[in-house]
Amino acid sequence: MLEQLAQDAQIASYQLATLSSRSKNQALKAIINQLVQHQSAILAANQLDIAAGKEAGLTDALLDRLLLTAERLAGMCQDIEQLIALSDPIGEEYQGKQLESGLFLKKRTVPLGVIGVIYEARPNVTIDIACLALKTGNAAILRGGKETLNSNILLVKLIQTALVEVGINAQAVQLIADPDRALIYQLLKLDKYIDMIIPRGGQTLQQVCVEHSTIPVITGGIGICHLFVDESADVEKAIAVIRNAKVQRPSVCNALDTVLIHQSIAYEFINRLVPALAADGVSFRGCPQSVAINATCQVAQASDFDTEWLSLTLGIKVVDDLSKAVSHIRAHSSGHSDGILTQSLKSADQFVAQVNSAAVYVNASTRFTDGAQFGLGAEVAVSTQKLHARGPMGLDALTTYKWIGIGDGLIRS
Amino acid sequence: MLEQLAQDAQIASYQLATLSSRSKNQALKAIINQLVQHQSAILAANQLDIAAGKEAGLTDALLDRLLLTAERLAGMCQDIEQLIALSDPIGEEYQGKQLESGLFLKKRTVPLGVIGVIYEARPNVTIDIACLALKTGNAAILRGGKETLNSNILLVKLIQTALVEVGINAQAVQLIADPDRALIYQLLKLDKYIDMIIPRGGQTLQQVCVEHSTIPVITGGIGICHLFVDESADVEKAIAVIRNAKVQRPSVCNALDTVLIHQSIAYEFINRLVPALAADGVSFRGCPQSVAINATCQVAQASDFDTEWLSLTLGIKVVDDLSKAVSHIRAHSSGHSDGILTQSLKSADQFVAQVNSAAVYVNASTRFTDGAQFGLGAEVAVSTQKLHARGPMGLDALTTYKWIGIGDGLIRS
Repeated sequence: MLEQLAQDAQIASYQLATLSSRSKNQALKAIINQLVQHQSAILAANQLDIAAGKEAGLTDALLDRLLLTAERLAGMCQDIEQLIALSDPIGEEYQGKQLESGLFLKKRTVPLGVIGVIYEARPNVTIDIACLALKTGNAAILRGGKETLNSNILLVKLIQTALVEVGINAQAVQLIADPDRALIYQLLKLDKYIDMIIPRGGQTLQQVCVEHSTIPVITGGIGICHLFVDESADVEKAIAVIRNAKVQRPSVCNALDTVLIHQSIAYEFINRLVPALAADGVSFRGCPQSVAINATCQVAQASDFDTEWLSLTLGIKVVDDLSKAVSHIRAHSSGHSDGILTQSLKSADQFVAQVNSAAVYVNASTRFTDGAQFGLGAEVAVSTQKLHARGPMGLDALTTYKWIGIGDGLIRS
Repeated sequence: MLEQLAQDAQIASYQLATLSSRSKNQALKAIINQLVQHQSAILAANQLDIAAGKEAGLTDALLDRLLLTAERLAGMCQDIEQLIALSDPIGEEYQGKQLESGLFLKKRTVPLGVIGVIYEARPNVTIDIACLALKTGNAAILRGGKETLNSNILLVKLIQTALVEVGINAQAVQLIADPDRALIYQLLKLDKYIDMIIPRGGQTLQQVCVEHSTIPVITGGIGICHLFVDESADVEKAIAVIRNAKVQRPSVCNALDTVLIHQSIAYEFINRLVPALAADGVSFRGCPQSVAINATCQVAQASDFDTEWLSLTLGIKVVDDLSKAVSHIRAHSSGHSDGILTQSLKSADQFVAQVNSAAVYVNASTRFTDGAQFGLGAEVAVSTQKLHARGPMGLDALTTYKWIGIGDGLIRS
């Protein structure tokens, strides 16, 4: 049955691939209309999920992610309006040239085909991914968290109604509504029909996908992020950047996890940083040297430097020099966002050259790693792997290209 | 031990990533010098492989792939010279812009890191891949066919000598010399150290990699290729293109496997095509309708239309119209190279829009799908999957990018 669903999605993708931008935008407008018209039904379905979630003892944070309100729905509709306004990457032709053989060769941007997205209990992601996929002419198979099933079933039904209204195959967007986890493993083997899997969730989900999928997987969204305070750093500015990176929104992947500090300024810097951030509620896990400098720091366990805190905890480690900072980052970073705070051009260049994370910063907060901040207009996910797309993935990341060769009875000699 | 080898390659990749183009080209020159200086030793080592291969009863075709001669070595050195002359894609910065937040954001092309290549008994591939990896600042882990072990051990030793000569970590290029197949399965799990796996071999190897690898895999090199003869095709030109695609070099992946023929011209076309290609030694597997038209065709088995012939066999199938041709291609193509032969602009556009193969041709031979023919200067592999790179992969396909964000104590508001 899952195979049938995937096959249907592939068939729908053939139609999607040849739609004009206008048709795709009409579909997005029809989705907005459905969301507006059926707002009370959506909120009611969502309340069923919320009630079940409370009964199941979900944390307040999870319940908040799960919750839809009139205001949030309006925000989602605004996001779709913005998506409509973005230019459509599909159908662009480039690098066209006449080769020596006489062949006229060009590349054309085309949809990937069918994308499978596995995500947690956030009903807004259902709308988000479906719309990003449609905008780029891809079919989508959605597998949301079971806690949000009532919301998702209705949302996907409304999307499908909108698609049919504008003459698009409803199976272009499909939900795996059965909460059985075994279906995830089945999904990951359907490489005959699905072109890309995006797991939007924690380390365990990512690992399951990497280990079991025969479909290419875009891993990401896990940020063990570092800032290195070089000996020449401007202390005031450095503390401001570290505070922003740690405190502004600690629960997200681009929040700071570990500060590395050049030993030559460690004493002064730690004794200014720790009280400044403690005032914001930050607690510290330090290497022995930093604990010796400021006893507010607890002694870090080895695993602390491999932890994505997602909270107001901050690791602190004193390092001998920039090279040691780079070594630490190579060993412990998840390749998401890492930066240097320095006044030295040489140090900045060396750090940028040697740290191979998706986003590398000089004197700026790691919090900038985000599709909207990067001006991409939309964000599909944040990739921390190196193939196809790195860092915040915009609409382009849902496309590929084909080579088109044109001759007039042309043969290879 | 394999893990150590991969870890060493990763460490070497850190140095490679920061080398100038000049240093990398010096390494390539040093490799040429080693190949020239040690030509007789190379040919002697290769003769050991040839002798063992003859004893093991390898076919003449396999022995020919395995064979190195002075002439072939000279050709390999010329290929390296050409690679030296190509521009280095690494370090290019693009899409630089000042964002509203004040962040200056740009992308920089960087190496992937460590690439693992698994291939068959072709010693030239050892040199080829090592040099392509070095040119793009990547470390390479090579696993060649066991039949070519003596050749590969010496070739990699000479490459490593050349690297050390120019101050590069010898472990940038490493060979898995142990022929135990279990090592392939171990290699595919080393995602901590290896960034990309390229299997250059048959369907079984590709499938093993897709099923067992936790590292992203670039599949490709399998071509079940089609040409569709539309009702408006120029018959003379169509036969010339089909002959070229089938006969010029039948043993390669871009050679033609199946001709689809519009029913309205099937009678005339098949009766001209079959005798013309039979004269070149081609034999035919036809659908019942084509067999009825020309009894030279044998009746095709169902599996024949899913076969990459790699020989002078050609499938022939009569289809109702262009849409049916597209359906057949969607069901049976490996997504490598497919084309239409037509005089109709509308048919050409429809075919190009609906057939989503890596290379799609109009009135040209499928034989053009090749890095050199496409003007890429070098060919790493031919990808038939959709992520990262499609079709002939040039140097660019061995790169990724990082985002670099620069501020002056910049925080996200």
